[in-house]
Amino acid sequence: MSDDLSTRLASLERLARRLEPDDHLREHLTRAASAYAEEFVTTLPSAPGFVPDEHDATARPEAVSENPRSIASFFQTLATSIDTVGINPASGRHLGYIPGGGVYASAWGDFLADITNRYAGVFYASPGAVRLENDLLAWLATVVGFPSTAVGNLTSGGSLASLIAIVTAREAAGLTCATIPTAVVYRSEHAHHCLDKALRIAGLNEVVLRELPLDDQYRVCPERTSALIAEDRAAGLRPWLLIGSAGTTDTGSIDPLDALATIAASEKLWYHVDGAYGAFFALTETGRSRLRGMERADSLVLDPHKTLFLPYGSGVVLVRDPTHLARAHRYQANYMQDADRASDVRSPAELSPELTKPFRGLRLWLPLWLHGVGAFRAALDEKLLLAQYAYRRLGEIGFERGPEPELSVVTYRWRPRTRHDGRPIDDETEIDAFNRRLHDSLLRDGRVFISSTLLRGRYTLRFAIVVHRTHRSDMDLALELLEAEVRRLEAARFSGCTESGHPLASGS
Amino acid sequence: MSDDLSTRLASLERLARRLEPDDHLREHLTRAASAYAEEFVTTLPSAPGFVPDEHDATARPEAVSENPRSIASFFQTLATSIDTVGINPASGRHLGYIPGGGVYASAWGDFLADITNRYAGVFYASPGAVRLENDLLAWLATVVGFPSTAVGNLTSGGSLASLIAIVTAREAAGLTCATIPTAVVYRSEHAHHCLDKALRIAGLNEVVLRELPLDDQYRVCPERTSALIAEDRAAGLRPWLLIGSAGTTDTGSIDPLDALATIAASEKLWYHVDGAYGAFFALTETGRSRLRGMERADSLVLDPHKTLFLPYGSGVVLVRDPTHLARAHRYQANYMQDADRASDVRSPAELSPELTKPFRGLRLWLPLWLHGVGAFRAALDEKLLLAQYAYRRLGEIGFERGPEPELSVVTYRWRPRTRHDGRPIDDETEIDAFNRRLHDSLLRDGRVFISSTLLRGRYTLRFAIVVHRTHRSDMDLALELLEAEVRRLEAARFSGCTESGHPLASGS
Repeated sequence: MSDDLSTRLASLERLARRLEPDDHLREHLTRAASAYAEEFVTTLPSAPGFVPDEHDATARPEAVSENPRSIASFFQTLATSIDTVGINPASGRHLGYIPGGGVYASAWGDFLADITNRYAGVFYASPGAVRLENDLLAWLATVVGFPSTAVGNLTSGGSLASLIAIVTAREAAGLTCATIPTAVVYRSEHAHHCLDKALRIAGLNEVVLRELPLDDQYRVCPERTSALIAEDRAAGLRPWLLIGSAGTTDTGSIDPLDALATIAASEKLWYHVDGAYGAFFALTETGRSRLRGMERADSLVLDPHKTLFLPYGSGVVLVRDPTHLARAHRYQANYMQDADRASDVRSPAELSPELTKPFRGLRLWLPLWLHGVGAFRAALDEKLLLAQYAYRRLGEIGFERGPEPELSVVTYRWRPRTRHDGRPIDDETEIDAFNRRLHDSLLRDGRVFISSTLLRGRYTLRFAIVVHRTHRSDMDLALELLEAEVRRLEAARFSGCTESGHPLASGS
Repeated sequence: MSDDLSTRLASLERLARRLEPDDHLREHLTRAASAYAEEFVTTLPSAPGFVPDEHDATARPEAVSENPRSIASFFQTLATSIDTVGINPASGRHLGYIPGGGVYASAWGDFLADITNRYAGVFYASPGAVRLENDLLAWLATVVGFPSTAVGNLTSGGSLASLIAIVTAREAAGLTCATIPTAVVYRSEHAHHCLDKALRIAGLNEVVLRELPLDDQYRVCPERTSALIAEDRAAGLRPWLLIGSAGTTDTGSIDPLDALATIAASEKLWYHVDGAYGAFFALTETGRSRLRGMERADSLVLDPHKTLFLPYGSGVVLVRDPTHLARAHRYQANYMQDADRASDVRSPAELSPELTKPFRGLRLWLPLWLHGVGAFRAALDEKLLLAQYAYRRLGEIGFERGPEPELSVVTYRWRPRTRHDGRPIDDETEIDAFNRRLHDSLLRDGRVFISSTLLRGRYTLRFAIVVHRTHRSDMDLALELLEAEVRRLEAARFSGCTESGHPLASGS
C-alpha cells in the first residue's frame, strides 16, 4: 500500500484514539461521576421536590464544541444548568406524577449495558442477553397472572408498550382501510392519553372512539359498556377493542377488570389492560385481589419505571398469544441472514418496532438481584398504606376528598368557608381559584411537589405516591404544608389581603 | 391516626428502605461495577469479536428471586452467562454490523441520567434537560445542513426515529383510509427494512410500494424514478413518499440525494432521507460532499449509536417543518395541565410517541463535551480510509469486490479456481457455498466478526467498519485471516479434503 495512505491512517488513528479515554481519564471520570452521584443521593432526603425555573438560560455554554472540554466544567454545567431546576422525580417529596424515584442500582445496570454494548435485539448476537430478557419477561408474566406461553417486550416506557399492544390488536383483528372506520374502541375518559396517541400513530385515527361512562369512583360501568356494544353492533359497527385501566393516572381507580374481561370474551373483543401504573401492585396481597381479572387480558402494559421504582426508560408489554405479537412485528432483510440462522429462542427485535435496541434487561435485573422481590413488595405495600394514611389525614384537616384510594393516588380540594357563617362555599369557580392559589403556593415553596388535575371539570389536587423514597415523614411534611397554607389563605380571604403577601416560610 | 397503621407503616418502611443502598453497599457496588468495566475495557483489544454460543443455558440461575443476592454473584453471572458469548459489538474486531462500538464516556451519561432521574419529556418538569436536548438537536441539524428552524427528537434508535418520520409524513399528506390504498411509496430494495416495518406499524400496509431500480453500484436511478412517478400519476395513484439512503446497510451506497430531492420537490412528494448509518459522515469533508442533497430532505434519521459511536440506544429524527412533527404527536390530558402552563420551549413528549422518556441527552452530550467534535470527525475519516484500505487489500489478495466503498462498508466474495486450468469457476451456487464455508470458518475462529448478505441473490461477505475502536491492525488481522482461510479452503478443494479438517489456528 502507498506510504501516503499509511501515513494518513496513522495520523487519523492518533486523533480517533481520543475517543477511548486512557487509564488516567477513565479514573478521573469514574471518580467525578461517582462523587456527583454520591452527593446527589446523600442530599436527596433534604432536597426540594421542585425548584421553579429562574435559571438564566442565555448563560448556558455551547452544548457542543470542536475541542475537548474538562470533566470539571461538565459537572459544573450539569449541576447549575440541569440538576437545580424543575421537578426532582428522584426525591421522596415528589408526590406529583406517576414515575418511581429511580432505584440507585438500576443506574449501574445501564452503565454496564453501555460499557459492554451487548446487542439484545437478536438471539444470535447475544444469546445470554436475550435469554435474560426472556427470563425477565417470563417473571413479569407471572406477576400479572399471565400464562407462561405469553410473550412480551421491554420498551422505553408505557407509551411504546401501548403502541405495540395497539398494533398487535389491530393486526390480530385484521383491520384494514376498509374496516377501520367501522371498528370501535371502548375506553373511559380516564384511560391514559398515550392510548389515544398510540391509536393515532398506528393509523387508527378513523376508528370510532366510545367513551365509557364512569361510576362515582371514576371506574368504568360494565353494564353500560355491554349496552353500548350492543347498540354499535345494531348500527352495523364492529366492536374491536376494549380498554380497562388497572389504576388510572388521574385517580388511581381500578376498572372492574374481571367484569370487563367477561364482556370482552363474550363479545370477542381484544381486551387491553393498561397496568402501566397499577399492575405491579399485584406483587402485594391487597393489590392482587383488587386487580383480579387483569390476568384475562389479551395485552397488558406495565411500567417498571413507575411502580418498580426504576429510573425513566422501562416499560413492558405482555401479549397472551405469541403469534399475534410476532405477526405484527416480523421483519426480513438480507443483511440479517446470519442472525436468522439461529434457534427457536424469540428475539426482541421480532416483537417490537425497534431493531437496534439497548439492553434494557440489566437495569431491571440488577436491582431485583440485589434487593430481592421482597423489598419491592414491601415498598408497594408501604405506598398503599401511605395513601390510606394521607386520605385519612386530609379528611381530618377538612379537605373535600375524592374516592378512597384503591392504589396510591389521592385526590382532594379545599372548600373555603363563607365569611358570615363559616360554612363551605358553593361557587365552584371560586373553589377552583382557591385551590389553584393553594397549589401555586406549594409550588413556590417547593419543598414538596404536588400536582393537579381536573375531575368532573373541577381543579383538584393530587398526591401520586409512587417514589420508593417517599416515607411517612415526607407525607407528614406535605400535609403540614397544605394545612398551614390553607389556614393562611383562608385568613387572607377574610382579611382582604392577597395571598402573595404571606408566603410559606421557605427552605427545608 | 391509629397505632396499628403507624406500626405497619414503620415496619414496611424498614423493609422498603432496602431499595436505597446504604453507604457501604453503594461503595461496594461502585467498586464492583467500575472494576468490571475496567476489566472489560482494558482487555478489549485482545478480546474475540465473536464467541459461538456453547453455553449451557439450562445452568443459568433464576433471573428473579424473593430475597437479595450478592453483588459478587451478580457479576459472576453477568460474566459467565452474558458477556462471554455472541457478538462483541464493543470490540474493534467487530466488522459485521452497523453499530458503533459504544464510547466509554456515554455510559457515565446514562448512569447520571438514571441517578438524577430528570424527566426530559416536558419543559416544565426539567427546563435544563429539555434545553440541553433542544441544543443537541439544533447542533445535529447543522451537521446535516438543516435550517435552524428544524425540530427533532432523540429516540432509542433508528427504527423509532424512522417511525416518527413516517407518521409525520403521513399526517402532513393527510392520508386517510380513503386515500392510503392509492398512496405510493418509492424506495429501493436496499432501503432499510425498518422503513417497511415503520409503514406497517403506522397503519400503512395498504400503500403501494414501488421498488426503485438500482445502478451497478446499488444506488437508485433518478431517471427511472421520475418515469415511475409519471406512470403512477397516469394510473390515478397518488405519489406520496420518496425515500433516499444516505448510506445503505448492505453496501454503504449513497443514493443520488440531490437528484432525488429535485424530483421530490417538483413532484411534491415527502422526501425522507435515511441517514441512520451515513449522515454523520457529513462531519467529514469527504462525507459532506458525497452526501450533498441530504440537506433538502423533509425528514431525516441519523443514529448516534452508529456513526457517532455511542452505545445502543440513540437515534435521532429531524423534521424540516416543525408544524408537521408537532401535529402528528400532540397530546392532551388533564393530569398534564400543570406541564402545559409553561413557555414556548418545545417539549420532546410533544414530538414523539413517548410521553415518559429517559433523558437521552446526557449519553450524547458527555462524550461530545469530553472529546470534542474533532475526535469524532477524525474517527469518521479514519473509517472512510480504512474502507479504502480494505478494498485495495482485498483486491490484492484476489477477492471479487463490490463497488468501491463510498462510505465504510466493503463487500466481497471469493471466486474459487477450477482444478484443471486454475481459472475462476462460474458456478454461482458453488461460489456461494465456498463463501459460506469461508464465513463459517471465520466465525468459528471468532477473532474477528464479519457478516454476510445477499447481493443480486449471491452470498457476499461484508466489512462494516463502524466501531471507533477499529484501527488498521484490526483490519490487517481480518485480512490475514481471510487470506489464510481462502488459501486453505482452496487447497482442501484440490486435495479432496473437507474444510473442517484444517481449522484456522484459533486464539489470538
